[in-house]
Amino acid sequence: MSRFSLAAMTTVTVLGLGPMGHALAAAFTAAHHPTTVWNRTPGKENGLDATSATTAEDAIAASPLVVVCVRDYRAVRSILDTDALKGRTLVNVTGGSPQQARELAAWAADHGIDYLDGVIVATTDAIGGPDATLFFSGPAEIYHRHRDTLAALGENAHHLGEDPGRAAAFDASLQDMLWTSMSGVIHMFALAKAENIDATDIAGHAKAMLGFFPDMIDFLADQVGSGHYPGDAGTLTSTAATMDHILDAIRTQGLDNGVLSAARAQVQRAIDAGHGSDGFGRLAAL
Amino acid sequence: MSRFSLAAMTTVTVLGLGPMGHALAAAFTAAHHPTTVWNRTPGKENGLDATSATTAEDAIAASPLVVVCVRDYRAVRSILDTDALKGRTLVNVTGGSPQQARELAAWAADHGIDYLDGVIVATTDAIGGPDATLFFSGPAEIYHRHRDTLAALGENAHHLGEDPGRAAAFDASLQDMLWTSMSGVIHMFALAKAENIDATDIAGHAKAMLGFFPDMIDFLADQVGSGHYPGDAGTLTSTAATMDHILDAIRTQGLDNGVLSAARAQVQRAIDAGHGSDGFGRLAAL
Repeated sequence: MSRFSLAAMTTVTVLGLGPMGHALAAAFTAAHHPTTVWNRTPGKENGLDATSATTAEDAIAASPLVVVCVRDYRAVRSILDTDALKGRTLVNVTGGSPQQARELAAWAADHGIDYLDGVIVATTDAIGGPDATLFFSGPAEIYHRHRDTLAALGENAHHLGEDPGRAAAFDASLQDMLWTSMSGVIHMFALAKAENIDATDIAGHAKAMLGFFPDMIDFLADQVGSGHYPGDAGTLTSTAATMDHILDAIRTQGLDNGVLSAARAQVQRAIDAGHGSDGFGRLAAL
Repeated sequence: MSRFSLAAMTTVTVLGLGPMGHALAAAFTAAHHPTTVWNRTPGKENGLDATSATTAEDAIAASPLVVVCVRDYRAVRSILDTDALKGRTLVNVTGGSPQQARELAAWAADHGIDYLDGVIVATTDAIGGPDATLFFSGPAEIYHRHRDTLAALGENAHHLGEDPGRAAAFDASLQDMLWTSMSGVIHMFALAKAENIDATDIAGHAKAMLGFFPDMIDFLADQVGSGHYPGDAGTLTSTAATMDHILDAIRTQGLDNGVLSAARAQVQRAIDAGHGSDGFGRLAAL
């Protein structure tokens, strides 16, 4: 309890009041942190019980902890004042690549600014609640110093390591899986529709098939982690044959087959490299 | 109970004793169905409490219900004798396309053979148990006549409709989702590995992200089913930007980006066709 009370005293600044920045500021105020906000375009602070600063410099000067959430890294660079930030902690949750995070961290270190990189894996309405997942990376000491304050943003926060690019690297990897899978889901619906199958009917079976995914992920993690790719549960050669059957069904309906064809081509490269009797995990080591 | 006892009396023939055919025959005998088996290469009936026929014709003549499970449709055609099959029910669980199933059903109808097409969504060790899913399509009357017997193969059996290609169409659609998603999972591991992230570490977060998939599938099913693709929860234009970020991270590591690039190209086609402000579901209607 005392830990929470102490944390509640921390003053916070939020730079950027787009939908996500606004949600972050609202979460800090809901957790009783005195909050200062700034946005390049004024008038975005409506509904927030926060102090509105006229300049980014003033906003930064108001708090030891500055959270920046803007469109991209170019916008981050344009609003950050090194003199104002010196000695403070900058938490950047603007979306970007691992490399961009590492470059900004190096820039911060050069200017005596403590830096944490953050990724928000949540929709704006989930911020502050049990479903909001947040990844942070950068020096553990800095994270632990601000951990209780940052906990206001979501109950599911993870410090992933000292490398400042690590949060973005986790995010890029997971988003890679997510969007590729979503492409698979939407193509399933397209093929089903071409075969006069209702979206609702196939959705039920697709959700049942998801029950197999956790085991599949663990199975592949074992292969990738160990560097051993036994084909006992299915070889790349058999995978190629299965994909060819699916591609036939797709082509028969005249549908675009670009995504699965690209997956099939990757399998072929592994086969051509002599790995046809290996399992699917081999594809992570091409 | 009486229903089960009656069903238990049914004599069954299984043609093809590869690993799956062998498992099917074992499941029939375990459910006390007198079973006759045949395989092109003899000596595959070991461990089965079944009658071994010398020819496919003899095996077919032994039972009113004939299940065929061989390598491909070419093999199916080569072993089926129309005279022997006339008046019997043929259940074909050999893997193939919806079109192949429809053609074989038409051939069966021409020769007075009752035909059901089946798809087994299970590994051999799951056959006969609660985790074995089976899809059947063809005339409902034929399915219901043999339903109790076929129930020996798995507890999760579905008759999907009268169109004989429907089981294969469901299967192709679901496999399309599965293998595209698996490509996404393995690429996640590849990108994580390049970023020095352990497979086990990212696997835990990937499995947490799966918690979002049932809602995602229902969300897209709504859009596809209704033909309305509101972009409130994210537009194709924002999806394109997200995919570009992931592709940047992939390219920075020098990894193959074929699969996600193909998905990105599909999004671009929708944007170019004027659907940039629509939601992801629009991709099923290109």
